[in-house]
Amino acid sequence: MVGEWRNVVSSDVGQQGGRKSLLIKGAVISDHLTSFQGDMLITDGKIAALAAHIDAGAQACEVIDAEGLVLVPGGIDVHTHFNIDVGIARSCDDFFTGTRSAACGGTTTIVDHMGFGPEGCDLFHQLRVYKAYAKESAVIDYSFHGVIQHIDDAILGQMEAMVHEEGISSFKLYLTYGYKLDDEAAFKALRQLKKVGAITAVHPENDAAISAKREQLISEGKTSAKYHAASRPLECEAEAVARMINLAKLADDAPLYIVHLSNGLGLDYTRIARAAKQSVWVETCPQYLTLDERSYERPDAVKFVLSPPLRNASECDKLWVGLADGSIDTVATDHCAFTTIQKQPGDRDFTQCPNGIPGVELRMPLLFSEGVSKGRIDLPRFVELTSYKPARLFGLYPQKGSLAVGSDADVVLFDPAMKTTITHENLNDNCDYTPFENQACDGWPVLTLSRGAVVAAHGQFTGKAGMGRFLKRKPFSGE
Amino acid sequence: MVGEWRNVVSSDVGQQGGRKSLLIKGAVISDHLTSFQGDMLITDGKIAALAAHIDAGAQACEVIDAEGLVLVPGGIDVHTHFNIDVGIARSCDDFFTGTRSAACGGTTTIVDHMGFGPEGCDLFHQLRVYKAYAKESAVIDYSFHGVIQHIDDAILGQMEAMVHEEGISSFKLYLTYGYKLDDEAAFKALRQLKKVGAITAVHPENDAAISAKREQLISEGKTSAKYHAASRPLECEAEAVARMINLAKLADDAPLYIVHLSNGLGLDYTRIARAAKQSVWVETCPQYLTLDERSYERPDAVKFVLSPPLRNASECDKLWVGLADGSIDTVATDHCAFTTIQKQPGDRDFTQCPNGIPGVELRMPLLFSEGVSKGRIDLPRFVELTSYKPARLFGLYPQKGSLAVGSDADVVLFDPAMKTTITHENLNDNCDYTPFENQACDGWPVLTLSRGAVVAAHGQFTGKAGMGRFLKRKPFSGE
Amino acid sequence: MVGEWRNVVSSDVGQQGGRKSLLIKGAVISDHLTSFQGDMLITDGKIAALAAHIDAGAQACEVIDAEGLVLVPGGIDVHTHFNIDVGIARSCDDFFTGTRSAACGGTTTIVDHMGFGPEGCDLFHQLRVYKAYAKESAVIDYSFHGVIQHIDDAILGQMEAMVHEEGISSFKLYLTYGYKLDDEAAFKALRQLKKVGAITAVHPENDAAISAKREQLISEGKTSAKYHAASRPLECEAEAVARMINLAKLADDAPLYIVHLSNGLGLDYTRIARAAKQSVWVETCPQYLTLDERSYERPDAVKFVLSPPLRNASECDKLWVGLADGSIDTVATDHCAFTTIQKQPGDRDFTQCPNGIPGVELRMPLLFSEGVSKGRIDLPRFVELTSYKPARLFGLYPQKGSLAVGSDADVVLFDPAMKTTITHENLNDNCDYTPFENQACDGWPVLTLSRGAVVAAHGQFTGKAGMGRFLKRKPFSGE
Amino acid sequence: MVGEWRNVVSSDVGQQGGRKSLLIKGAVISDHLTSFQGDMLITDGKIAALAAHIDAGAQACEVIDAEGLVLVPGGIDVHTHFNIDVGIARSCDDFFTGTRSAACGGTTTIVDHMGFGPEGCDLFHQLRVYKAYAKESAVIDYSFHGVIQHIDDAILGQMEAMVHEEGISSFKLYLTYGYKLDDEAAFKALRQLKKVGAITAVHPENDAAISAKREQLISEGKTSAKYHAASRPLECEAEAVARMINLAKLADDAPLYIVHLSNGLGLDYTRIARAAKQSVWVETCPQYLTLDERSYERPDAVKFVLSPPLRNASECDKLWVGLADGSIDTVATDHCAFTTIQKQPGDRDFTQCPNGIPGVELRMPLLFSEGVSKGRIDLPRFVELTSYKPARLFGLYPQKGSLAVGSDADVVLFDPAMKTTITHENLNDNCDYTPFENQACDGWPVLTLSRGAVVAAHGQFTGKAGMGRFLKRKPFSGE
Repeated sequence: MVGEWRNVVSSDVGQQGGRKSLLIKGAVISDHLTSFQGDMLITDGKIAALAAHIDAGAQACEVIDAEGLVLVPGGIDVHTHFNIDVGIARSCDDFFTGTRSAACGGTTTIVDHMGFGPEGCDLFHQLRVYKAYAKESAVIDYSFHGVIQHIDDAILGQMEAMVHEEGISSFKLYLTYGYKLDDEAAFKALRQLKKVGAITAVHPENDAAISAKREQLISEGKTSAKYHAASRPLECEAEAVARMINLAKLADDAPLYIVHLSNGLGLDYTRIARAAKQSVWVETCPQYLTLDERSYERPDAVKFVLSPPLRNASECDKLWVGLADGSIDTVATDHCAFTTIQKQPGDRDFTQCPNGIPGVELRMPLLFSEGVSKGRIDLPRFVELTSYKPARLFGLYPQKGSLAVGSDADVVLFDPAMKTTITHENLNDNCDYTPFENQACDGWPVLTLSRGAVVAAHGQFTGKAGMGRFLKRKPFSGE
Repeated sequence: MVGEWRNVVSSDVGQQGGRKSLLIKGAVISDHLTSFQGDMLITDGKIAALAAHIDAGAQACEVIDAEGLVLVPGGIDVHTHFNIDVGIARSCDDFFTGTRSAACGGTTTIVDHMGFGPEGCDLFHQLRVYKAYAKESAVIDYSFHGVIQHIDDAILGQMEAMVHEEGISSFKLYLTYGYKLDDEAAFKALRQLKKVGAITAVHPENDAAISAKREQLISEGKTSAKYHAASRPLECEAEAVARMINLAKLADDAPLYIVHLSNGLGLDYTRIARAAKQSVWVETCPQYLTLDERSYERPDAVKFVLSPPLRNASECDKLWVGLADGSIDTVATDHCAFTTIQKQPGDRDFTQCPNGIPGVELRMPLLFSEGVSKGRIDLPRFVELTSYKPARLFGLYPQKGSLAVGSDADVVLFDPAMKTTITHENLNDNCDYTPFENQACDGWPVLTLSRGAVVAAHGQFTGKAGMGRFLKRKPFSGE
Repeated sequence: MVGEWRNVVSSDVGQQGGRKSLLIKGAVISDHLTSFQGDMLITDGKIAALAAHIDAGAQACEVIDAEGLVLVPGGIDVHTHFNIDVGIARSCDDFFTGTRSAACGGTTTIVDHMGFGPEGCDLFHQLRVYKAYAKESAVIDYSFHGVIQHIDDAILGQMEAMVHEEGISSFKLYLTYGYKLDDEAAFKALRQLKKVGAITAVHPENDAAISAKREQLISEGKTSAKYHAASRPLECEAEAVARMINLAKLADDAPLYIVHLSNGLGLDYTRIARAAKQSVWVETCPQYLTLDERSYERPDAVKFVLSPPLRNASECDKLWVGLADGSIDTVATDHCAFTTIQKQPGDRDFTQCPNGIPGVELRMPLLFSEGVSKGRIDLPRFVELTSYKPARLFGLYPQKGSLAVGSDADVVLFDPAMKTTITHENLNDNCDYTPFENQACDGWPVLTLSRGAVVAAHGQFTGKAGMGRFLKRKPFSGE
Repeated sequence: MVGEWRNVVSSDVGQQGGRKSLLIKGAVISDHLTSFQGDMLITDGKIAALAAHIDAGAQACEVIDAEGLVLVPGGIDVHTHFNIDVGIARSCDDFFTGTRSAACGGTTTIVDHMGFGPEGCDLFHQLRVYKAYAKESAVIDYSFHGVIQHIDDAILGQMEAMVHEEGISSFKLYLTYGYKLDDEAAFKALRQLKKVGAITAVHPENDAAISAKREQLISEGKTSAKYHAASRPLECEAEAVARMINLAKLADDAPLYIVHLSNGLGLDYTRIARAAKQSVWVETCPQYLTLDERSYERPDAVKFVLSPPLRNASECDKLWVGLADGSIDTVATDHCAFTTIQKQPGDRDFTQCPNGIPGVELRMPLLFSEGVSKGRIDLPRFVELTSYKPARLFGLYPQKGSLAVGSDADVVLFDPAMKTTITHENLNDNCDYTPFENQACDGWPVLTLSRGAVVAAHGQFTGKAGMGRFLKRKPFSGE
């Protein structure tokens, strides 16, 4: 079966000027609401038809026999850091290798969190820089979250244009790191972003507590990579989650998006807010679901240095419960890759380790395997987590995250029966390891289409740099 | 019945040099565990015996017939502000009028939250000042919570002596007001206080959000007293509660005491922490249980300006649920009285209103009436909230908060059948109004003994200034 | 102001054959979503227009000056027992006195829970009986809930016709009393009712536990009215709530309606189910919000004998929290009135007391006073609880429970400034007492219109027997 | 290291008449409170000393070098079914093979749930039968839970003697199966058992719902093994959990023990009860933690037919959260083994499948591996779950479940570094499969001592039939 449609891969269906079409037959097709077995017709890069049976005869189209496969909207990864300069290093994946890796893993859109620009720069600065990074490189469609480094009247004034002219309807602020915001600035940002139609994303960790913990560890000579997690316990994160929830409520109930949640206490805080109908959404990442703090006991602990750090395995359990019960909205990756060489300084001194891990290629397979194949979530929920909710929250729906007729033909086919063991040598990023090495997967993405074009097949990249387009996103309008 | 023992009042039983004794007969006697009907013998200011029947014949003692009355440990109010200078005014109750009022309301011990001293002063400064305030004035026993205005090595170094030499085993820090602490300072305070054996009390309100809200209200010309509450919504408080809970956990699980909780969201945060066995305790006050934000619609709204402000009546309901289910540990008053003249500037400009209300005399009757008489809590729980837990948490047990043989004979007799309507003219403070005016009460304290001496009877003060003694408190040792 | 429109009362606006209209001006008008100040035009018994200003000049209409008043949809009381025969007595209110009383209290629709018919009777039997009871008597519109006494194939087979031909789209079953259903029967009822488009209402109390408790009390000679509550503690009710929730889930997720919830534990069970998106709704009654078990200590305890019984005041607090946070959907009355003479046998033996209390006239004022006036709920929430949700759940929307143009002009005007003390002599039922005697109310319904006709004004009945029409209700379609 | 102490195995240390001693050196020793590295001295089958260093020189003792190993109290499995006749089959493990298997897996005490006796038999009947089964067979110490088949005055009257004369202080009742109790009987059992000092264990599943589901499946021809789970969804269990919680509360707050909990909803019900300080405890089993309903898709689904059935993997996550946060008290096995031949009839018709799976040998290793090694629980919590709490709840403490000096020297040594893949051929039961086949384990029990005697070493049985003694248990006295 696989052999048949594999031949299709080389032809570039979606790129045709004419009304060249592609017919995918017999897949289990699922959006965020329901699944059915049937056919999908793609024409000119858009979804043209969906039905139990579509007759290929009348159409001049290529046909993919997808019996036994699962078709879902292409993944939307709303948390990547390509080409980011974190001061002590520049991440090893740029917009070409990063999106290539994404495509091979079934992701067809990324919304990148841009790095900090020069101190005092305006909101447009990094957007220009990043658009340039991506323009000739990206192989799938992309956008960026705005980044807020400081708050003053000029910045507050630029927000409207960012949303309504530039199509950037989400912004991230940090409560730790170089350009952390204090409560006053965070409050002002939330209020103004709500006003102009944007959602505020936050990296929530309490800076003062981290500093104090770090100082104490250093004074005790505990600086090797394994102490990274001890320097930022989960209460650092949970505190900041509760803080932002309440500031957002105070700031005229501004919409709030918690990135990379790693623990159950923070999740409980968001549950309380949501039960009171507050506009708060929660993202987690595969690493917080499938890896845990035992990694810091390994000789290569440095490979797992990211923030927030990996937690106790019980926190994974709590996040899975949250995924299943609807308390978590999206799964993204926080892909921020550094090679083992780049991370090496962290071996002896975790404060010198560039934070972050690769993962953009493995989000869809890991969530499919641990979620769908293990029975914790069904296909519609998988779609909701990986593309529908991201599209809704970040102004991309229904162009993306949808299987409606007229939506972009960003789709991915999974072979649910394929059993794989993850190894970095099969991956397509520019890093030299994966933290998920040796993890077994049930189910794997075998074909990725970006606007109808096959950009990856069976883990092989078949697209081209520059195929991806910048997406002007719509203002925030709820979930 | 009342007539009989009323004759006893004038004689000064506990003050005798010899082994003069007092026998209270036939009361329903309750400590924090159980109730029974019986007799109590008091000798030399200590509880000497408890039994179903104690024979007065053999003893040279006066007898009080307390049939129909309820006897509980004298109240411990761990949150008063006597003689406090808040910059724009000095509270109208000093340690004489304040403790006189307390005594008449059934409270026999207060732990006062000392006001701020001069900028940069050491921890001992205010203790000296306040000991002088209280020495010749207080009519019941007293202690003070330390107050932390800033954190540096000197202050951290003084903590041990405060606890172990001065007997001050609790300290309060503020997250708003003049000497607010930032996260770093709060963290250091928590960690050091835990280390030296003290519990940290916190006034939890988010300063930045209050400032922003206040600014906005001023810019809209909304400065009359009624806007006070709008300037500090409950999320300001809840945020700070969650922040302190997490900082305390990070600071080696330092014991934490939330003062004057006014809302259900903050309570839910503490519930989560307590379910995870964290050392957090919660205080509320009668005003948050029985008054609500409708008071700000009154012409005399200024009389209700305090912080945190009164909330929606639903928050009262939530606090009552917390009182009944054990989520709240203590009821104190935050008595901080200013006369209507002193509060007058707040009428037009709430930012110019000295914050605070009187209440030290009404805590026991209000909680008895709304709690015990209405059936929400039973007598042991009433004792737990008003004297046992305060004594445990603040190093006074079993000298105070106990009916054990050998404990100080601080007891109060309630007449559960007495129906009263609160009016300020019957109160014994030095203020000129009560926010609880016209509130109906079922049950009233009719006799208060401090170390065996009758200090109040039927709302009449019968003690003397200077009778109260400073209490050196024991280090914190859990609840 | 009141004087002016009072003149309108006598004329029978809605009853005119021609296009006689009524214009209500200047009220605060609220439906379940929002409030605004403005005017409402009523023509031919329907709502014809809503606007900030409607000009009366062009219309041949009478005008009511409603400045200072609040206009909401007429109340829908979905839990009454008029004319019910409980074996040892027949309730003292029939469909005339019962609906008269309802109308005077601002209620314009009732859905009555019909009493049991002869053993083995079919589903239609009681409907015929009750339609006859109501036909010439009811002064406001009415319907009935079906009643299930036993389950067999015949009964299951009749359900469809009841829903689709008779317009009876809700049925009640009992877990205690004469015709209690066991689990098997309840399961089958739930499954079939879901299938035919009806919602299942349940009286949830565990029969076996009540029997055991009752037996024990009798054996101890504790049979006076005060022991009624002890014979059915709240766990009897909570158990049955959890049981029905789970049986409903098992029965194909059948929609479930919990009647007269009286306690927080049962409420917590429903909260869990609703958080998991189960179709469960909850009703409570004014007596469980404003009265408590202390009533059983009164000499006239017998007046408060109803099931479930009144609880500890803490349960009232929990229910108020549930009303405010959205966990409770409707407030009904369970009006089931017996005179003090009828209830007298219960004085010595609670098992001989006909269960139930009057209340249909006081639901709207009590919830307005304790809810809206006290600030716990706002006007839209008041509407949601008293008319919108009842209409939605029981197939009456948007004919009832709505202020949309075209909806029946069932409206009630409250004077929010009117202060009243409840006394039975001002009420319009056929009973001789009210359990709410002496309760103070802030706000009172001063005008009630049923399909445009003034049926009550200032507590005086102005309607006629037989004005009310039987309502064929639509099948259940969610909330 | 292992080699050294392996020599010890053959000698029968604890069986000596003289004061022969055994010294275990260098293990990480953990009870339910703390861990430390040190030595343990065993004399005459009792724990004689515990210290950081015990000098072997002065003692005539054998020495085990346990460096690198973990020593905990021997496991107590309070839920086995050896030698049980379920009508359609007799379980394939008797008290010899069953306890042999237990011993090899690190379990040193079992409390067996006796099967039903003849209809109408008294409480003593099965005890006599089972004592005879076990007497010459058991290789480790044992007791039995009483079994309640019906309730009448005779049975209620026998309870006291069972507890105080026979030492049987726990009884189980069923809400489904052949001798299910109705609410009235369950209530009476709970009340009387509380009175005589016993705890009530319950198999909680709603019989009526199971019957209805089963009927429906049969009518649809869905009878193969895979439909077993569909015939008893988790709400069947959750309903019965809530029912028993409330009946227990009504029955004078009788202590209640929920056996083999398999889902999060039931767990939430128990959490609510425990938060209200009710006496409810919860048991789960390794199968509910590590297996899930996907097993029913396998060709050998019949091997996984047990009740309650395996659930969705999300339920496993929820149980793990409960294990970590303290909501679950014990882990037992419900070992009830039938061979694949015996289970064969269930292949085509799940109603003909003897319910149950083997597991007594794998409880300790599975919980050690998935719990301790994965970091979800620490060693003291492991001890609490596997021996301390079982001993407390069932009247065996401190003879069992304790490492105190004087306690029985029932201990087990784990090698935390041993990696194993479970396969039935290495197990010591009398069954022919394990449902945990191929599951990987980190850590394994390498030495088991029963009263000082080595009964198993490295998976090899070294004990003798009849070594085990019947344990008269103490009345229930709380946890």
